[in-house]
Amino acid sequence: MKWQRKSLLAIEDLSPNEISFILDEAKAIKCEKEKKVPSLPQSLPLLGKRIINLFMEPSTRTRVAFEIAGKSLGADVISVSGDASSLTKGESLKDTAKNVQALGADAIVLRHSSPGSPLFLSKLVKVPIINAGDGAHEHPSQALLDIFTLREKLGDLSGKKITILGDILFSRVARSNLWGLKKLGAKVTLAGPSTLVPKEFENLGIKVSHDPNDALIKADAVMLLRIQHERQESSHFPSLNEYSKIFGLNWNHLNVMNKKAIILHPGPLNRGIEIDSKLADSNRAVILDQVSNGIAVRMAILKLCIN
Amino acid sequence: MKWQRKSLLAIEDLSPNEISFILDEAKAIKCEKEKKVPSLPQSLPLLGKRIINLFMEPSTRTRVAFEIAGKSLGADVISVSGDASSLTKGESLKDTAKNVQALGADAIVLRHSSPGSPLFLSKLVKVPIINAGDGAHEHPSQALLDIFTLREKLGDLSGKKITILGDILFSRVARSNLWGLKKLGAKVTLAGPSTLVPKEFENLGIKVSHDPNDALIKADAVMLLRIQHERQESSHFPSLNEYSKIFGLNWNHLNVMNKKAIILHPGPLNRGIEIDSKLADSNRAVILDQVSNGIAVRMAILKLCIN
Amino acid sequence: MKWQRKSLLAIEDLSPNEISFILDEAKAIKCEKEKKVPSLPQSLPLLGKRIINLFMEPSTRTRVAFEIAGKSLGADVISVSGDASSLTKGESLKDTAKNVQALGADAIVLRHSSPGSPLFLSKLVKVPIINAGDGAHEHPSQALLDIFTLREKLGDLSGKKITILGDILFSRVARSNLWGLKKLGAKVTLAGPSTLVPKEFENLGIKVSHDPNDALIKADAVMLLRIQHERQESSHFPSLNEYSKIFGLNWNHLNVMNKKAIILHPGPLNRGIEIDSKLADSNRAVILDQVSNGIAVRMAILKLCIN
Repeated sequence: MKWQRKSLLAIEDLSPNEISFILDEAKAIKCEKEKKVPSLPQSLPLLGKRIINLFMEPSTRTRVAFEIAGKSLGADVISVSGDASSLTKGESLKDTAKNVQALGADAIVLRHSSPGSPLFLSKLVKVPIINAGDGAHEHPSQALLDIFTLREKLGDLSGKKITILGDILFSRVARSNLWGLKKLGAKVTLAGPSTLVPKEFENLGIKVSHDPNDALIKADAVMLLRIQHERQESSHFPSLNEYSKIFGLNWNHLNVMNKKAIILHPGPLNRGIEIDSKLADSNRAVILDQVSNGIAVRMAILKLCIN
Repeated sequence: MKWQRKSLLAIEDLSPNEISFILDEAKAIKCEKEKKVPSLPQSLPLLGKRIINLFMEPSTRTRVAFEIAGKSLGADVISVSGDASSLTKGESLKDTAKNVQALGADAIVLRHSSPGSPLFLSKLVKVPIINAGDGAHEHPSQALLDIFTLREKLGDLSGKKITILGDILFSRVARSNLWGLKKLGAKVTLAGPSTLVPKEFENLGIKVSHDPNDALIKADAVMLLRIQHERQESSHFPSLNEYSKIFGLNWNHLNVMNKKAIILHPGPLNRGIEIDSKLADSNRAVILDQVSNGIAVRMAILKLCIN
Repeated sequence: MKWQRKSLLAIEDLSPNEISFILDEAKAIKCEKEKKVPSLPQSLPLLGKRIINLFMEPSTRTRVAFEIAGKSLGADVISVSGDASSLTKGESLKDTAKNVQALGADAIVLRHSSPGSPLFLSKLVKVPIINAGDGAHEHPSQALLDIFTLREKLGDLSGKKITILGDILFSRVARSNLWGLKKLGAKVTLAGPSTLVPKEFENLGIKVSHDPNDALIKADAVMLLRIQHERQESSHFPSLNEYSKIFGLNWNHLNVMNKKAIILHPGPLNRGIEIDSKLADSNRAVILDQVSNGIAVRMAILKLCIN
């Protein structure tokens, strides 16, 4: 197989082969990095390329990770971040993107509050668009690093039971993972309060549960989501305290899961809310592996899309 | 001719030969860039040089363009931006600049709200000062990229009719262009509402008109200016709607202009206000060429002043 | 002697030999830099290393100086700055640091409002932690550059009289200098209003004075501190005007000091408050030397701790 796509917009668009292709590239990059031999600047694959990080929603983590990934490949990375209004002074998104392209960008990494904005832009500009999160739609690089980490720890994901627990309704991370995991043959269960995990998800052929003990039975991995107050227009559960009592992951939940089940979380962690604090520090949690793998995965994305 | 200036403070200071010299250097750089062969880091002309972008007024576009220009030449570019008070904690501009020089800057790119601040600094520090916009005074790199684009499209500007339309009174872009275009022999007309285009400009030997149809007759190019609400202390025209009806560029205006007349705009574009939206996307508009050319022109400025 | 420390947390921890070792390394770097021959990227000592500037308190000067220092050594420097809450979204400092380490940082330069936070982190992560200011506790790189400048101008500091004048109570700069100067054998006097210079400091074997004329007698150097309004919960002196009348350094003070006594200030300078404006521009003031030396000193710190 050869990589054909110019942009990475959504996991929903990718074939299982394409997902594996990115993950294999990321694995090769990770192996190379672990040798700890610094490459000479002139031998880096994106030498002389210019990546513009266009972050029109405040963000630190994803922006920094893409910045590190791009620089590690030898590219110049220019980060332009802030809220949309201050960046554009009323300019349309289309004009902003055409301007960024005219500045000589070889790729645009876009974070935007509007679902679909990366797709919209990819039709207007010639350079690759990498979706770094578009509203509640998708966050493909996050899902790819989650899946990379799952494969690293569990092997082939076909038939594996993965439970996603938390604020599904507002989560682009959940959406991207859901598509990716299904494509790779995993059995996905969504769990959380009924206000955050609507039964409609069952139409996608996914199990929905409002009882964490039930949802976690024989799970090979649980993927926790951060309770994102900022995306919720009104409160969807009585209180954080109540949420954590019923849905916060604790040591008892481990008993119903598979013996070597692992715990993922995209960060930042609300200790004592989504997860018991000691559990987050246990060897079951692979949360920091996710962060590290995020660099290799984003390097793979940039390398494949730009070259 | 050899380049003699250390700093680039204002177009008003430059001789026609100096303007042409920068533009020719920019043209050579643009040709080189279009070959798309990445230079080895060690062969870049500003390798080991350090440029400090001191942006004491919020700005994204110009800062990013100078950042890209500097990095493309091999320099380290450190951007320090924010509003003056948070950057300086009450320190005087003189002290800030002396500090930046002491940090080892090989050049300072300065954006400041006070007219004349780049000149003031250039007398206090030894390193080149590049004016990236000083209040309503000048914005030389913007005018040079505008003039570069005009020459690219129209050839020699001597005798060409260029109309600048919009908010002239508050525009440093207009001021810099006015000086540059006159020096190169173009016939400049200023147009806009009488509150924004005072008759006093006629003392400079420039035609002033408050009727766009009249101002655009046989024009070879029209340079639109953005309506800058942020610089106007009180409203200088009844409403945006009224402004756009009378002064917004539309297809009818093209009829009075020369056949191949082109349209420039420094961005960000207020579609439907300064210009009809479709007209902005037509092949008459060279707005994105301006953005691209801005990199080559700023590379030329940095290369000439620093070396 | 060989450098053994992984992190630089506080001057209080260092032996006199360690302080001298850093200063000697900085001197060698400064000499090398003054040759003005740009190094080839591949020969830089921190090529391929990644430094993360984690500035959880707003700061420009120190952050930029560390950025320049790191880049000058060939490292990639990623600056993450803002106030703690926006960076962490409620995440604990421990988790933030573990995340930064997982991103592949080879060193973390930390500015934080909590005294002791760099020490706390150094126990949790494997990579070097460089303290860039922790609350009112210490600011070791600032003290090292101050001491570097003192040694450059005065030679061996043993027996030299150094007076620190101003807002001692809230000053991490004063604390770090106090430890460093004592370790190198200097005689330190602290001076300022009694509300800002408590008598308790005498327990450390340091002279305390509330009369600047007395405190400055036969001093070889005076180190002024900035009046930091932002750190004072209530006013500790009647007015700025009154402060400057009594404690602001002026030409009369020079008469009581040693003939070639020098004046230091960590910036930003409040001219007319801590110091007479012309005195700050005189050849007695070494304020800009401090800024320049800050780059060499921080390069030495990064080089020693990372390699």
